[in-house]
Amino acid sequence: MKIKTGSRLLFTGDSITDVGRVRPIGEAPYGLGEGYPKLVSGMLTAFLPELKIHVLNTGISGNTIRDLRARWQTDVLDQNPDWVSMMIGVNDVWRHFDRPFEPNIWVSKEEYIKTYRELIEMTKDKVKGMVLIAPYYIDKNETDPMTAMVRDFASVVKELAKEYQVIFCDVQKEFDEAQKNLHHMGISVDRVHPNGGNSPGHFILAKSFLKSVECWPIE
Amino acid sequence: MKIKTGSRLLFTGDSITDVGRVRPIGEAPYGLGEGYPKLVSGMLTAFLPELKIHVLNTGISGNTIRDLRARWQTDVLDQNPDWVSMMIGVNDVWRHFDRPFEPNIWVSKEEYIKTYRELIEMTKDKVKGMVLIAPYYIDKNETDPMTAMVRDFASVVKELAKEYQVIFCDVQKEFDEAQKNLHHMGISVDRVHPNGGNSPGHFILAKSFLKSVECWPIE
Amino acid sequence: MKIKTGSRLLFTGDSITDVGRVRPIGEAPYGLGEGYPKLVSGMLTAFLPELKIHVLNTGISGNTIRDLRARWQTDVLDQNPDWVSMMIGVNDVWRHFDRPFEPNIWVSKEEYIKTYRELIEMTKDKVKGMVLIAPYYIDKNETDPMTAMVRDFASVVKELAKEYQVIFCDVQKEFDEAQKNLHHMGISVDRVHPNGGNSPGHFILAKSFLKSVECWPIE
Amino acid sequence: MKIKTGSRLLFTGDSITDVGRVRPIGEAPYGLGEGYPKLVSGMLTAFLPELKIHVLNTGISGNTIRDLRARWQTDVLDQNPDWVSMMIGVNDVWRHFDRPFEPNIWVSKEEYIKTYRELIEMTKDKVKGMVLIAPYYIDKNETDPMTAMVRDFASVVKELAKEYQVIFCDVQKEFDEAQKNLHHMGISVDRVHPNGGNSPGHFILAKSFLKSVECWPIE
Amino acid sequence: MKIKTGSRLLFTGDSITDVGRVRPIGEAPYGLGEGYPKLVSGMLTAFLPELKIHVLNTGISGNTIRDLRARWQTDVLDQNPDWVSMMIGVNDVWRHFDRPFEPNIWVSKEEYIKTYRELIEMTKDKVKGMVLIAPYYIDKNETDPMTAMVRDFASVVKELAKEYQVIFCDVQKEFDEAQKNLHHMGISVDRVHPNGGNSPGHFILAKSFLKSVECWPIE
Amino acid sequence: MKIKTGSRLLFTGDSITDVGRVRPIGEAPYGLGEGYPKLVSGMLTAFLPELKIHVLNTGISGNTIRDLRARWQTDVLDQNPDWVSMMIGVNDVWRHFDRPFEPNIWVSKEEYIKTYRELIEMTKDKVKGMVLIAPYYIDKNETDPMTAMVRDFASVVKELAKEYQVIFCDVQKEFDEAQKNLHHMGISVDRVHPNGGNSPGHFILAKSFLKSVECWPIE
Amino acid sequence: MKIKTGSRLLFTGDSITDVGRVRPIGEAPYGLGEGYPKLVSGMLTAFLPELKIHVLNTGISGNTIRDLRARWQTDVLDQNPDWVSMMIGVNDVWRHFDRPFEPNIWVSKEEYIKTYRELIEMTKDKVKGMVLIAPYYIDKNETDPMTAMVRDFASVVKELAKEYQVIFCDVQKEFDEAQKNLHHMGISVDRVHPNGGNSPGHFILAKSFLKSVECWPIE
Amino acid sequence: MKIKTGSRLLFTGDSITDVGRVRPIGEAPYGLGEGYPKLVSGMLTAFLPELKIHVLNTGISGNTIRDLRARWQTDVLDQNPDWVSMMIGVNDVWRHFDRPFEPNIWVSKEEYIKTYRELIEMTKDKVKGMVLIAPYYIDKNETDPMTAMVRDFASVVKELAKEYQVIFCDVQKEFDEAQKNLHHMGISVDRVHPNGGNSPGHFILAKSFLKSVECWPIE
Repeated sequence: MKIKTGSRLLFTGDSITDVGRVRPIGEAPYGLGEGYPKLVSGMLTAFLPELKIHVLNTGISGNTIRDLRARWQTDVLDQNPDWVSMMIGVNDVWRHFDRPFEPNIWVSKEEYIKTYRELIEMTKDKVKGMVLIAPYYIDKNETDPMTAMVRDFASVVKELAKEYQVIFCDVQKEFDEAQKNLHHMGISVDRVHPNGGNSPGHFILAKSFLKSVECWPIE
Repeated sequence: MKIKTGSRLLFTGDSITDVGRVRPIGEAPYGLGEGYPKLVSGMLTAFLPELKIHVLNTGISGNTIRDLRARWQTDVLDQNPDWVSMMIGVNDVWRHFDRPFEPNIWVSKEEYIKTYRELIEMTKDKVKGMVLIAPYYIDKNETDPMTAMVRDFASVVKELAKEYQVIFCDVQKEFDEAQKNLHHMGISVDRVHPNGGNSPGHFILAKSFLKSVECWPIE
Repeated sequence: MKIKTGSRLLFTGDSITDVGRVRPIGEAPYGLGEGYPKLVSGMLTAFLPELKIHVLNTGISGNTIRDLRARWQTDVLDQNPDWVSMMIGVNDVWRHFDRPFEPNIWVSKEEYIKTYRELIEMTKDKVKGMVLIAPYYIDKNETDPMTAMVRDFASVVKELAKEYQVIFCDVQKEFDEAQKNLHHMGISVDRVHPNGGNSPGHFILAKSFLKSVECWPIE
Repeated sequence: MKIKTGSRLLFTGDSITDVGRVRPIGEAPYGLGEGYPKLVSGMLTAFLPELKIHVLNTGISGNTIRDLRARWQTDVLDQNPDWVSMMIGVNDVWRHFDRPFEPNIWVSKEEYIKTYRELIEMTKDKVKGMVLIAPYYIDKNETDPMTAMVRDFASVVKELAKEYQVIFCDVQKEFDEAQKNLHHMGISVDRVHPNGGNSPGHFILAKSFLKSVECWPIE
Repeated sequence: MKIKTGSRLLFTGDSITDVGRVRPIGEAPYGLGEGYPKLVSGMLTAFLPELKIHVLNTGISGNTIRDLRARWQTDVLDQNPDWVSMMIGVNDVWRHFDRPFEPNIWVSKEEYIKTYRELIEMTKDKVKGMVLIAPYYIDKNETDPMTAMVRDFASVVKELAKEYQVIFCDVQKEFDEAQKNLHHMGISVDRVHPNGGNSPGHFILAKSFLKSVECWPIE
Repeated sequence: MKIKTGSRLLFTGDSITDVGRVRPIGEAPYGLGEGYPKLVSGMLTAFLPELKIHVLNTGISGNTIRDLRARWQTDVLDQNPDWVSMMIGVNDVWRHFDRPFEPNIWVSKEEYIKTYRELIEMTKDKVKGMVLIAPYYIDKNETDPMTAMVRDFASVVKELAKEYQVIFCDVQKEFDEAQKNLHHMGISVDRVHPNGGNSPGHFILAKSFLKSVECWPIE
Repeated sequence: MKIKTGSRLLFTGDSITDVGRVRPIGEAPYGLGEGYPKLVSGMLTAFLPELKIHVLNTGISGNTIRDLRARWQTDVLDQNPDWVSMMIGVNDVWRHFDRPFEPNIWVSKEEYIKTYRELIEMTKDKVKGMVLIAPYYIDKNETDPMTAMVRDFASVVKELAKEYQVIFCDVQKEFDEAQKNLHHMGISVDRVHPNGGNSPGHFILAKSFLKSVECWPIE
Repeated sequence: MKIKTGSRLLFTGDSITDVGRVRPIGEAPYGLGEGYPKLVSGMLTAFLPELKIHVLNTGISGNTIRDLRARWQTDVLDQNPDWVSMMIGVNDVWRHFDRPFEPNIWVSKEEYIKTYRELIEMTKDKVKGMVLIAPYYIDKNETDPMTAMVRDFASVVKELAKEYQVIFCDVQKEFDEAQKNLHHMGISVDRVHPNGGNSPGHFILAKSFLKSVECWPIE
C-alpha cells in the first residue's frame, strides 16, 4: 500500500463523503458516517490492522468547491492528515440544472479549476500524499448537458492530478464497469448518491479508492 | 369540463399519487397528501367552486398493478367514485432494475396488460368516467432498458384507453415539453418522483390531468 | 408579464405569507413554506420556466408593520430583490380586538401610514417593482369594527400604491368574488388564514398576485 | 342548586366540550380536558365542596348529533349519570359550509330534530335532570347563512327543552352579552371554539351552565 | 375593585405561581401557565371585561426570596406593572427540611425579613398597589417544625403588609376553611402545590386574591 | 436468612412497589423498576450472591387490594414464586380523601380484610413464605382522618400476619425511627412515595424487608 | 463460489446476526440491519453482481437455540431459502453466567445438541446448502468457565457439520487470527458483539462466511 | 466513620462515576446519576442521617486523568468539598487497546503518575480527606496486556496513597472477592462498567468506598 503505517487519512468532500458523519470532525471508529470512508476504515482495520491507519471524514452535504475552500484550513489542514482524499464537484455542476434561476450559486469551470489548484497548493507540501477522486454521474447519455459537464469537470481533475503528480482515482470507470451487471437504479436512484449507507455503491467507491492507493484486492 | 357538477373524483396509484395522503382513505380538504391530487382539488375549489367536485386519493407508495388489483374493491369501488383516475406501472418496471435478484416481485408486461384489463372491466360500468394516466420516466435516453420498458408499458395504457374508450392522459408528453426550458434535475432527481410536494412536477401532472378532462386553462 | 426574465421576487409580510417558510430566509424550491409564495413559484416554474423567476419569502407570523419595519433592511433590502411584494396590516388591526387590554401592541392608522411610506421610500428606487397586497378580512359585515378597520387600512394601501405608482393587488375583491360559490368557512375559519397549506385560499391569493402582475391566466 | 348532593354530572357534545379530555371516559379530577366541564368541576369542588358533585365528560371533537346518537348508550347511559348536559349541533350546521361538496356528511334540520328527540327520550326517565345547551355562533351578522342556520337549530333546542320540560341553557345570550365589552376575536377566532383552554370563553360557558342550574353567582 | 381600569397586574413568586408560564415573561392570554394567575385573568376577562386588566406572571419554580431578589429588577420592575402580587417563602422554609445537609441554600427568618423589606421598598412607590400573599402549608399539625416555620414566616408577611400599608392576602385562612369539606389530599398531595393545573386549589388561591382586592364574589 | 438458596422472591403491590418496573412481569436484573425491590435484589446479589435469589416485581401504580385481587392469579401465582411479599392498602384509604365524590372506588375496611384473607388463603400453601408489609403514612398527626385510617388498616395486616403465621413487616416503625434525624419532607413529599427512585425512602423500605426475613445487617 | 447464481441466502441467529434488521423478515437491499449479513450482501452485489444473490436476515437479539427452534418454520423454512446460514449458541451459554439465579432460561449442552440436530434435519433436504457458524467468545483465557463452555458448544457445531456434511464456518479462528494485530477491545468490548454496525468485527464475520463458501478473496 | 458530620463529599472520575449525573455539577438528592455515588448518598442518608453528609458528583464519561486535570479547578476545588474521592485511569489504559491507531489520545504511565501527583498536591491541603479509588478491570487473565496495564496503574495509585498518606480504596479486591460466587458477566459485560444503574456492581463499589472510610457494615 502506498499509505505508510500509522498514517492519518482524511476524506473530505460533499454528501457522497459525508453520509451522516459526526460534527465537527468525523473520526474512526464511530464518527465516519455510513459512506465509503467508513467502509475503507472498516476493511483496513479488519484485514490490514498492522497498517494502523486512522481515518477522518470532513465531508459536508451540499458542498461545492467554493464551500470546501472556505473551510479547508479548519477542516483539512488543522486536522494534521498524512494523506488527504477529496471528491468534490458534482454539486458545482448540479446547481446549474436543479437551481436554474440562481446563477449566483453555480460554480463555473473556471472557478472550479482555479479553486482546485488553490486547494492542492495549500496542501501538497504539508502531507505525504493526496488522492483526487473525480466527480461522477452514473448516466451513459452524454448528450445530457449535466452528464457532459460532469465528464468535463472530471477531466479537469484528471489533468490536475497529472500536473501536480498526485493520485487520481477514477470512480466513473468503476461505475461504468459495475453497470455491466447492475442497472444504475440498483446503485443510485439519482445517479449520484449510492442508495442507502454501507451499500453496494459505497463498496464500489471504497474499492476504487483502495485500488488507487494499491491496496486492492484485500485478502 | 367533462366531469359533471357534484362528482366524486378518485385518484389512485403509487407513490406519485400517494405523497403522504391520509389512511385509509384520503379526502379533500385535508387528507389528499401533497401531490397532484391536492393541486387538482385546490384549483378546482378555488377557481371552479360551482363544479362542487369532491376529490379522493387512495394511492399507496411502492404499489405495482398487482398490489392495486388486490385492493381495488375496497380502495376504489367501495368509495363510490363518479370518476376514477389511475396512474400505475412505474414500479412494475422499476423492480426489474433496482431489485435485480428478486424476480418474484417483478411484474411482466403480460401480467400488466391482463391486470389492467381486469381493473378497467371491474370499473367501467360502475362509473361515469375513467382517466388512465400512463407511467412516465423523465429520461430521454431510449437505449436505457428502463426507459424503453416504461415507454412500452405506457403504450399499453394508450391502447387500452383507446380500446375501452376511456380518457388517456399523456403526462410523458407534458414532461417532454417541460424539459425544453427545465432540466429534469429541476423536476425530479430520480426522474420519477417530483422533487418535493406541491412542486413544479406536481403542477405539470395536475395540468396534464386537467387538460385530459378539458378543464384547462383555468382562469 | 410585468416581471422580467431572471428576476428575484421577494414576498414578505405576516403569517399569511410565512406559512412555515424556512429561516432565516425562505427560498425556492424548498424553503418557501406552504402558502401563496410557494404556489406562485410552483406555477411560474412549471408553466413559465422560460421566465426564470427566483422566489424568496421572508414573512413572519404575527408581524405588524412595526415588526416589519424593524427587519426591513436585513429581510428585504439585503436580499437584493428585483421585485418586492408585501402584505401587512391585518395584525395591526387585529390586536385592537383580541388583545384589548394591551394598547402598547396596537398599531394605529397613523403609525401604519407613516411606516408604510417609509418602507416604500426605502425600497422603491432599489427595485424594479413593488406589489402592495392590501390586508383583507373575509367578512361581509361592515358594521363589525374589525371589518371596518381592515377595510380602512386596505384603502390606505390602495392610495399609497396610487401615490407612489406601484402595483396594487386587491385580494379582498378576489375573496368577495370567490364567496359567491364558496362560504367563507370553506376558505378560512378565522376569516384571515386560509384553511391548510397549498389550499384554495392560497390559490386565490396566488391568482390575485399573478393577475396584478399581468400573468394570469396561465396556460 | 338544582343538582342534588352526591350527583354524577355528565357533559357530552363536540369539540367545545371535549378540549382534550381523557379517553374513553373523562372524569374529575384529571380527565376532564381543558374546557368548561373542568371549570365547572373546579369551581364546584373549590367553592361548594359540600355538594360532592362528580363530573364526567364524553365530548368528542367533530361530532354531529348523528355521531353522538351512535355512542349514546356507551358514552352516556352506561356511565350512570344523575344529570346529563349536552351541547351539540354546530358541526351539523358547519359541514354545510366548510365541506360544501360532501352532502352525505351534512345533518339536516329534520334529522337533527328527530335525533335530538331520540336522545332525550332514551335518557329522560333514567336521570334526575337534563340540561340542553343550544349551539351558538358568535357572529351578529344574521344575513350570513351559517349564522342563520345555527340560530334556527338553537331555537329547535329551546323548543325541545320546553316540550320535554328539561333545562335550557342559552349560551348564545351570554356570548351576546359578553360582546358588549369584548370583541368576538378576544373570545374565539373562529367564533365557535374559545381561544385556548380554561379561557374566558370557557368561563362564559361554565357560568352559563351554572346559571341554568341555579348555582350562580358562586361566593 | 381596588385595581383601576386598564391596569397591568403582575404576579410573581415560586412554583405555585409559575405552573408552566411562558419564558421570559408570561402574559395573558396564552402565557400565564395553568395556575391561579390564569384563573384570575380568565375570570376578570370573562366577567369584568370593562376593567381591562392585563395580567403578567413571572413566578419561577423553586425560587426562594433570595432568588426573587436577584431578578426583581428585570422580572418585576422592568415590566412596568401597576399592581404587583407576590407569594414567596415556602421554599425558603422547605429547604431546611428536604435538603437538611445543605445549609447554604436555606433562607433564615432574618434574611427573609430583610429581603422582603427590600422588595417592598424597591417597589412601593413605583406601583399603584401591592398584594402580599403569605406562604401557606396545608397541614394542621402545628407541632410539625415545617408547619410552625411556615406559620412564622406568614406572620412576618402579615406584619410587613401592615407596616407598609399594602394589601395582605391570607390564603392559609382560605385553605383552612376549605378543609372543612375537603381533605387536604383532595387539594394538594404535598400540601403545597395544588393537584393539577386550573384545579380546585388554584381556584381557592384565585378567590383569595380576588377577595383581597375586593373583587369577589364575581357575578 | 429465612429465604432459602435458589428461591424466586416476588414483590407485589401498588406504586410504592411498581416504580417503573417492566410490563407484564418485572424481573431482575433489569425489569424491577427503581424502588425497594431493585435495592433488595441489588444488595442480595452484590453481598449475598451465594443465596441465588431471583427477584420479581408485579406492583402496579394506583392499585387497591380490589385491583390486586383481580390479577392475583396471573401476576402472582402463575409466576411460581417461592416467596411472596405484598404491600397494599394505602390507595384503598387514600381514595376516600382525594376522590371524595366517588364512593364506588373506595375500599372499605371490611372489603380490605375479606380480600386480604382471600389473597393469603389462595397463596399460603403454594409458597414457602409470605411477607405482609403494612401500609404506612409518614405523618405523626393521628387526628388526621387519613393517618388514623392507614394506622387502622396496618393493624389489620398485623393481625392477619399473626393469625396466618406469616411474616409481618412493620415499615411504619422504620419510618418513625428514621424521622428522628430526617424530616418527612426529606423522605417523601406526599408522605407515601419516597422522593425519587433508589432513594433513602426506598433504602428504608428495603432494610425493613430484609430485617423481616432476618437478613440485616448486610456485611 | 459454492452458492449458485440466483440463490436466496438466508442468515439467522441471535443479536450478532440481527443488528437492527427489519421485522418480520429482513431483506436486501434495505432490511438487513447493520451486521455481517449486510456486508456480505453489499460485497456480493458490488463485486459479484453476476451471481444475483438475494440475502435475507431473520436473526433476533437474545435468541437461544430454544427460541430459534420455536420460529424455525416461519422464519426460515417459509422464506424458501436456497441456502441457510445459522449462528446460534452464545446466549445459550451466556445465560448461565449473567443470569445465574434463573436456571429455567439456561440451555444445556444436551438440549443444544438435540435441538441443533432437529434444525438441521428439518432443513437439510429442503435447501441447496447450509452453513453452520460456530458460536465464539473473543477471550483467550480458557480457564474462564464461559470461555470453556463456548468452546465446547462450538466443537458440537463442528462435529454436527461433519456428521451432516454441511459447511462449517470457524469464526473463532478468524478472531484469534485478528487478535495478533488488534486487541479484543478494538473488536468487541463484551467479546461477543462487534463494536458498532458495519464495523471491523462484522467485516471479520463476513470474510469468514465468504471464505467458508469459497468466495474470498473478492477482487 | 472517618468523614465528619456535615461534610461535603465529592466524587469525581470517569463513566463509572458519572452514570448520567446532572450537569454541570451533580448533587444529592436528585443529581447524582445512577452509580455508586448515589448509592453511597442514599445509604448514608437513610441509615446514618445524623452524619448529614452532602454528596456531589462531577464524573464525566470517557475522561482520562488528562481530561480530569483540565477541569480540576472548576469541577473539584471550586465546589468546596471537605472530602474528595477520585477514581480515574481505566480510560487512560483502555485507549491503548480500543483506539490503537491514535497514540495522541493515550495516557502513558509517566503522564498518569505526574498528573496524579499534581491533583493530589493541588487538593490535599484544601480538604479534610481524600480517597483514591484505584482503576480496576474485572478480568483474571493477567497475560492480557490491558489487564496487566490496569494492574500496573492501580499499583501506582496504591503507592501514591501511601506516599501522600491519603486513603486508598481497593475495589479490585472487592471485585475479585465477589467473583467467587458471581461470574464477571453478572457484574459487568465489558468488565469495567457495572451492568445497569444502581446495580450489584455499583453496590460493590459503594461498599468498597464505605469500607475505606470505616463506615461498613451499615446497620
